[in-house]
This record gives sequence, C-alpha cells and structure tokens, in this order.
Amino acid sequence: MSKRAYNFCAGPAALPEAVLKKAQAELLDWQGKGLSVMEMSHRSDEFVGIATKAEQDLRDLLSIPSDYKVLFLQGGASQQFAQIPLNLLPENGKADYIDTGIWSKKAIEEAGRYGRVNVAASAKAYDYFTIPGQNEWKLSADAAYVHYTPNETIGGLEFGWIPETGDVPLVADMSSTILSRPLDVSRFGLIYAGAQKNIGPSGLVVTIVREDLLGRARSICPTMLDYKVAADNGSMYNTPPTLAWYLAGLIFEWLKEQGGLEAMGAINQRKQQKLYDFIDASGLYTNPIAKNDRSWMNIPFRLADEKLDKPFLAGADARGLLNLKGHRSVGGMRASIYNAVDEAAVDALLAYMAEFEKEHG
Amino acid sequence: MSKRAYNFCAGPAALPEAVLKKAQAELLDWQGKGLSVMEMSHRSDEFVGIATKAEQDLRDLLSIPSDYKVLFLQGGASQQFAQIPLNLLPENGKADYIDTGIWSKKAIEEAGRYGRVNVAASAKAYDYFTIPGQNEWKLSADAAYVHYTPNETIGGLEFGWIPETGDVPLVADMSSTILSRPLDVSRFGLIYAGAQKNIGPSGLVVTIVREDLLGRARSICPTMLDYKVAADNGSMYNTPPTLAWYLAGLIFEWLKEQGGLEAMGAINQRKQQKLYDFIDASGLYTNPIAKNDRSWMNIPFRLADEKLDKPFLAGADARGLLNLKGHRSVGGMRASIYNAVDEAAVDALLAYMAEFEKEHG
Repeated sequence: MSKRAYNFCAGPAALPEAVLKKAQAELLDWQGKGLSVMEMSHRSDEFVGIATKAEQDLRDLLSIPSDYKVLFLQGGASQQFAQIPLNLLPENGKADYIDTGIWSKKAIEEAGRYGRVNVAASAKAYDYFTIPGQNEWKLSADAAYVHYTPNETIGGLEFGWIPETGDVPLVADMSSTILSRPLDVSRFGLIYAGAQKNIGPSGLVVTIVREDLLGRARSICPTMLDYKVAADNGSMYNTPPTLAWYLAGLIFEWLKEQGGLEAMGAINQRKQQKLYDFIDASGLYTNPIAKNDRSWMNIPFRLADEKLDKPFLAGADARGLLNLKGHRSVGGMRASIYNAVDEAAVDALLAYMAEFEKEHG
Repeated sequence: MSKRAYNFCAGPAALPEAVLKKAQAELLDWQGKGLSVMEMSHRSDEFVGIATKAEQDLRDLLSIPSDYKVLFLQGGASQQFAQIPLNLLPENGKADYIDTGIWSKKAIEEAGRYGRVNVAASAKAYDYFTIPGQNEWKLSADAAYVHYTPNETIGGLEFGWIPETGDVPLVADMSSTILSRPLDVSRFGLIYAGAQKNIGPSGLVVTIVREDLLGRARSICPTMLDYKVAADNGSMYNTPPTLAWYLAGLIFEWLKEQGGLEAMGAINQRKQQKLYDFIDASGLYTNPIAKNDRSWMNIPFRLADEKLDKPFLAGADARGLLNLKGHRSVGGMRASIYNAVDEAAVDALLAYMAEFEKEHG
C-alpha cells in the first residue's frame, strides 16, 4: 500500500486512519457475526445497537439536552434547506435569514419557495470578508425562526459567537463546523450538518431538533421530510443509510477517545492559529477574512501572483498534500483542516508553503 | 475471521463476497491515490470516473436506451413515493395505482397527499396471493401515469409480465427485483429501486427516467426532489452518497463478470425453482402465492405448526443460515435470495429444511 496522503479536501473530507482501519477490519464480518454491517437488517438487534450507541456518543460529545431529538437523515444540507421551511415555516409566516456567503444564499433561495424570507443581515456590504455584528441585524419580531450558517465552507467565514434570538428558534447549518469544538446546543432550536466533513461519509445528514418544534410540518411536506415522522420512528421510518450511520458512530467513538470536544477544540485552535499566523507573516500568501471571523476549518488563501497557483498545486500534489485548490467561485487555495486532518498535516503544509515561498516569493 | 454466514435478509441484504473484499482492500487507499473513495471530492476526476463507469455499467447491464437518464439519489423508495407525484402528477391530475401489497399501499397513500389516485386494480380480493390480470384493471384514460410494484418484498408476489399502458407512462418500484433478470426498460416511463437489495448498500436509490418526463415538477417540489435538477447536474446537485455509489459500481462490475443479467436470470430461475419445488413437495412447508405470481427474490413460507417457528429459526442460526424470520405482518419465514445469495446458500437452506422436516415433520 502506498502512503496515506495529507488530504485538505473541503468535503467529502479526510477521515481518521484509525476509523478507516477498524471499518476495514470488520467490513466482511462484524464482530464475528459472519456478515458486514451493510448486510444487516436495520431492525436487527446488532444494527439497532450500533445506531443507539452512535446517537448516545454524539449526545455525550455535544452534551445534547434530553429535550432534543437526534435524527440521522439523508439528502445532505441541501435537502434540509427545503425541509426546514416545510417543517417550521407556516404558510403565511416569515423567517429571518442571515446571509454570510454561498451556503447561506442557497438556504435563503430554497426557503423563499415556501414563504416570506427576510434577509435580516448580509455580509455583502463587507464583500463577505466580515460578519455583520448583531447590532446591525434587522430581525423580525414575528419570525418563525432565524437561520444562519455558522461556518461558510467556501468563503472561510466563521461565527465566533452565537446569535441571541430570544424566543425565536435559532436554526444553524453546522455542516463544516460541528464537532470542531464544544457547543451549547441549548441555544438552538435546530442544528443540521451534512456528515461529509466532521461526521463521516457523505449520504448522511444529522439534525438535532428541540422537541417542541416537531409536529408542525406543512400538509405539502413529503412524509420522509417530516421531522416528527423521523423522530417517532428513531430515524427508521424506512431503511436508513446504515453503513454511513455505523461509520459516523466510529468517528464519535474516536472523538471520545481523543478526549472529546474540549481536546479537539484545543487542537483545532492551534492548527488554525499556526496557519493564519504563517499566512499573515508571509509576503506571498494572504487571507482576506476579518481576524475575528476567520474559519477554523476552512482556510482560503491566495498567492501574490495567480500564475503561481499551478506550480504551487503541482508541488503540493507531489508531496502528497492533496486537494488544496480553492472553490472556483473564490479562486486561489483552500486548506480544509477538519478534525481528521491532524497537526502533522498542517505542519507538512506549512513546511511546503515556506519552501515554496523561499523559491518563488 | 469467522466463516461468512448465509444471509437471507430481505434488505439491507447480502452482498457478493468478492465485492466486499475489493472494497476492503482499497478502503484506505484507492488505486494508490493515498485516500479512501469516501475522502474524495465528488467533483474530483477520480470520483467522477468511478461514478461515470458505474452508470455506464448499469446502462450496459439493463440495455438502457439513450433517451433515459440514470439518477443516483437518496431517501430510498419511500422518498420516491412522494417524489413521483411531485414530479409527474399535475395539481388537478390523476394517477392510476395497482395495489398488490404493503409497498404498493405505501406508494398509494403518499401519492394521495398530492392529488387524485385511482386504485385501478387490487390483489385484496385474492388475499394478496394472486395478481389480478390486466383484463380486470380499470385504468383511467387521462392518468398522468400508472404505478405498480413488480415485486412485493414482504408478500412475495411478483409480476411475470409487464403491464400494457399505451401512451400513459408506466412507473415501477423495482427495489427488490431490479437486476435479477433481463428487463425491457423501454416499456417504462420511470423505474426506481432502493439499492439495499440487488444494487448495493442502503442510502442510495437509483431512478431511471425517460427524458420527456423531466421538467414537470410542481412548484412545491423541493429542489433536491426535482428529477430534472438531478439529471441536469449528473446527480451531483449536492454531494451524492459517494461510498454507496462506488459500492454499487463494484456490484455492477461483478454482475458483468458473472455474465450479465441473462446469466443471473438463469441462476435466479434455478434458485427459486428449487426452493418452491421443495416447499410444494413437502408436508411441513407451504407457500400461499399463486404459482404464476411467485417472487424469484423473496420467498415466504410457513411451517405446518407455528410452534415449530422458534426451533426452526434457532437451528438455522446455529448453521449460519441467517435472517429467515418472515416480516411481522405476514409471519412465518422468508428466504430472500437476491443475486448475492448464491446457489450454495439455497442448497444449504434446502438441506437444513429437509433435515428439520425429517425430525419434526
């Protein structure tokens, strides 16, 4: 086998090698049962055990209060963009959305198909480099909920604070930030996260929803998109994505072994600090985001001359530093440094960036 | 490692050992790239290559005409139950449905939430043991489509023929029969199949749709559920379930290596014939389904005395013959003998059934 690469992909993203090895070891025969997890009925004692443990481990990691349901769903965050208004926005109601970039805008666009959407604040005035402070927000008193995107995977903008919305439920797309550090779930009405960054493989989306928000689905909501139906059936109204659920469970176990989210938060703090400090001190690399609003997980950066992009990427590839090309809408580079991208990977990237700057700076 | 069991689960079901071994070998490092398929961007050349080959192999296996799109979606057949009327049933339109059992009824119930549903025929009059012939059907001339369930996974009822619906598009839930034998796709407007029987792991549903049926989605249809959006984006409007797609591709490769659907059909014909012949000749076991309407894939059977169910299942488990318990709504036993359940597994089951009959008959 060749060496495992350092993988800075924004998602589907790197997974911990220990988790992949465990999955590999039991892929044909889970715990001596003679079959793969993929080949088990989702109603079997074995799989229900796997599913229940995964949920409990996630509850432990995030200290999820008991009046919240944890749902293991499909369709990614993009399906949640519809599922949220279909469940929470009454036919003649209104929802507040905060625009901080590409993913917020997608959520806004889809919600607008189901009711009135008030964009209560937008980072557009700041070229999406700064998050508008809450003092600038124009929240509606009668909003069904407030939606925001705590981390913009493409722009590299992240909230270091949780908005205050009083009695109005706060809804957050945490796809690329969940599990990166401790979180006070009780501040939210609903949290959702596509798995393919910090949770597991793609094809799974985790939704954490306060129980009082269940049972409000519109009549046009497909049964499969009704949170209450999912909650009442333990996310098994139909066959769930069993393999992805199992792999997510292995990730949760691994996170607990690492010391939980306090420990991960400390590591992630160091990783991003190193990278931003290096970029800020460099004469070749720049990151445009306001210091207080910089993402811990997705770090876009540019080279002083676009002509250097190709040689930079080629040299990175040759050193096993993969998937550093930025999103086409932003250009430049992006290093996604999720939980499974360890400090050694960041150090290897920094060594290469320094070497490249010495040659081309 | 312990021996691999014979797995008769109705789904998620057995997968070919050769496929699992291949997936296992490359789980940490796909083709020397230093990362798992799970860790690749869905937009990378590598994954696009995997996805394209999987689709082409499926097209080859089923001889899918070029004016059909093949979509790799999420949410299982249950989500398709809503997605079909949301895409194909105009607000004031009508759809014909054929009721042959539990899965048909679920499809009917969900479609009824989006418009008028005419149950054009029902097997209820035959206690769901016989499929009503098309001469008994009351199809509507103005139906947007006709929906049926070619194989009822729970009841064990299967169509040996394709309904004739003229210009009205025929829509089929092929979850538990697809790829079990050759199929004339050109007879259908839309075919869908949850992966977790003959295609791969759960969390993936394949939809094959004639192009002229795209672009009719209702305004209330979530973007993620619009077939045209999926088709226009090569099933990558958002991140698809990449691992499941890759595993499905390995299954398609394996099916081609076995000689394709002609060869699989011949094997499956023999497997089911052996099992039904044995049951019919036995004094202990019975199957209630009309001979022409018996499923090749899901074979429910009862023992003469319910008290024998427990010892039968215990003895089966002890011999590594797993998941023979019938669905709770039907009772008794069920042997699901999909493509990955080979003739040796059926022979082992028959040997045990004979042994058990000798002891308890």
